[in-house]
Amino acid sequence: MSVSLPSLDQIHDAAARIAPHAILTPVLRHSALDEMLGAQLYFKCENLQCGGAFKFRGACNAVWSLTEEQAVRGVVTHSSGNHGNALAMAAATRGIAAHVVVPDGAVRAKLEAIEKAGAILHRCAPMIAAREAKAAQVQQTTGATLVHPYADTHVIAGQGTLVLELLQQSRGLDTIITPVGGGGLSAGCSIAAHGIDPAIAMFGAEPSGADDAAQSLARGARIDSFTPNTLCDGLRTLIGEPNFHALREHQVEIITVSDEESIQAMRLLWQTLKLVVEISSATVLAAVLKQRQRFAGRRIGLVLTGGNVDIDVLPW
Amino acid sequence: MSVSLPSLDQIHDAAARIAPHAILTPVLRHSALDEMLGAQLYFKCENLQCGGAFKFRGACNAVWSLTEEQAVRGVVTHSSGNHGNALAMAAATRGIAAHVVVPDGAVRAKLEAIEKAGAILHRCAPMIAAREAKAAQVQQTTGATLVHPYADTHVIAGQGTLVLELLQQSRGLDTIITPVGGGGLSAGCSIAAHGIDPAIAMFGAEPSGADDAAQSLARGARIDSFTPNTLCDGLRTLIGEPNFHALREHQVEIITVSDEESIQAMRLLWQTLKLVVEISSATVLAAVLKQRQRFAGRRIGLVLTGGNVDIDVLPW
Repeated sequence: MSVSLPSLDQIHDAAARIAPHAILTPVLRHSALDEMLGAQLYFKCENLQCGGAFKFRGACNAVWSLTEEQAVRGVVTHSSGNHGNALAMAAATRGIAAHVVVPDGAVRAKLEAIEKAGAILHRCAPMIAAREAKAAQVQQTTGATLVHPYADTHVIAGQGTLVLELLQQSRGLDTIITPVGGGGLSAGCSIAAHGIDPAIAMFGAEPSGADDAAQSLARGARIDSFTPNTLCDGLRTLIGEPNFHALREHQVEIITVSDEESIQAMRLLWQTLKLVVEISSATVLAAVLKQRQRFAGRRIGLVLTGGNVDIDVLPW
Repeated sequence: MSVSLPSLDQIHDAAARIAPHAILTPVLRHSALDEMLGAQLYFKCENLQCGGAFKFRGACNAVWSLTEEQAVRGVVTHSSGNHGNALAMAAATRGIAAHVVVPDGAVRAKLEAIEKAGAILHRCAPMIAAREAKAAQVQQTTGATLVHPYADTHVIAGQGTLVLELLQQSRGLDTIITPVGGGGLSAGCSIAAHGIDPAIAMFGAEPSGADDAAQSLARGARIDSFTPNTLCDGLRTLIGEPNFHALREHQVEIITVSDEESIQAMRLLWQTLKLVVEISSATVLAAVLKQRQRFAGRRIGLVLTGGNVDIDVLPW
């Protein structure tokens, strides 16, 4: 798959394209957390985005970038949850069909949300190969355009729009940290951040049971076969090819965290920020907590990616 | 106790006084909730206020209204939790002592927060008379100024500041609904709202197991003896004398809701708005859900009062 990375201009275009549909999410601070960490933390609350996750940005940009002719045939994707839901909601804003391939074992709350948003569900085995095969099949029979969850220029550009907002809302950030799964978020945010201020240090937080990005960057080549083992259901994906190159180019440093560390950080976010965030989102705070001394004194933007949690099954 | 109600000017003064310390909390919307209810809902997120509750506004205004001579002797209050925490935090912003009388049975998370904020705790029986007696005793021995949780002019004025913000953030509201416990919030909000737009309809949501405000308004005289029985720990208080008069004067209509209805509304808020809110806060959405047809077509401001929940003991 050959996908080009978006430019800063394309990210600005995306911001204009999604503005009528997306939420300008708030940035929250918390003095006790700042004190605890000896740093200034700025939480970009994408759990408050449409559909409860940042994924709406990329999906919405992809849907509204289609020609009329493409649009009438709908869109299709495979997704562990948030991107599927986002694409369903984005398709609804344009009144077009959305087909979503969902792996067995996905979080119930996320599947319900996707169906409620009006998408047609197609189930498959949880392996990445099975998901891609099923999506290709749907694509062939319907003529729908594939909107890949993270290896897609429009999707990457859409995710990057949150950094444009973050840097407007919180002046003088020197560090930004995002979770890393497929890497679309990290790539888009890095391009946007460095397009505006090349001095911003970019970090990625990755579950240690799904640390293919860390391993890929360490050995200088992308791992393309890996079975993730983590509770972070939003991050059980291999880093995409274009995203891997973006992370190298922008010197994104990966910090790996255990699920236990993410659970503790998730608890802390619920208790202090009063936000319902997913365990995948909590990786960013877990990373800062883990390398406290390193982040001391910094002004850090932390991207809280989503809040689609099954509140009957909390991990503590 | 003879306490005068604040004027709109006093509420504006309070807003200026607390501005350096309080958070301008966001107003959130949710299209699926709007659709479900056939109304436009504007949630004022005081769970994101300092200390996780609107109570910081009133406490902060009271603390910064003290003369230097009063301030050095500190402040004292009795509180089931959020006001105690708020007063402790407010006192810390001025570097003065805070004594907090807490009833046995208060939520653990709230007590921990009060101690962490630097207050001196004084325990007593959960009856209102016992709380007031203990506070009077502390007041006598220390010379501290009593900051009553809801029957205090500065406190009522401070709570009213949230409506000044809400009406700036969300133009054209025709309805505002707040929970009712001691009535300080409802009184302050009513004075602020009607000072700006007398046509705004004011509602209060009250647990059916603590419906003394509803009963008092119905019979035209304040009930002054009542044993509340509700899971809504923030609303287990009798309405204050001045507040009762404010609610009558501003024709605040009370809607009572069962704890079961509040639990369902709390779940819905967690799942859709992605906010950690207390059961007491959820009464406002429970009231709108209960009288859906009545609220259809309105532009409603709903005050989410706090988010101090023991996340290990959820009511569902």
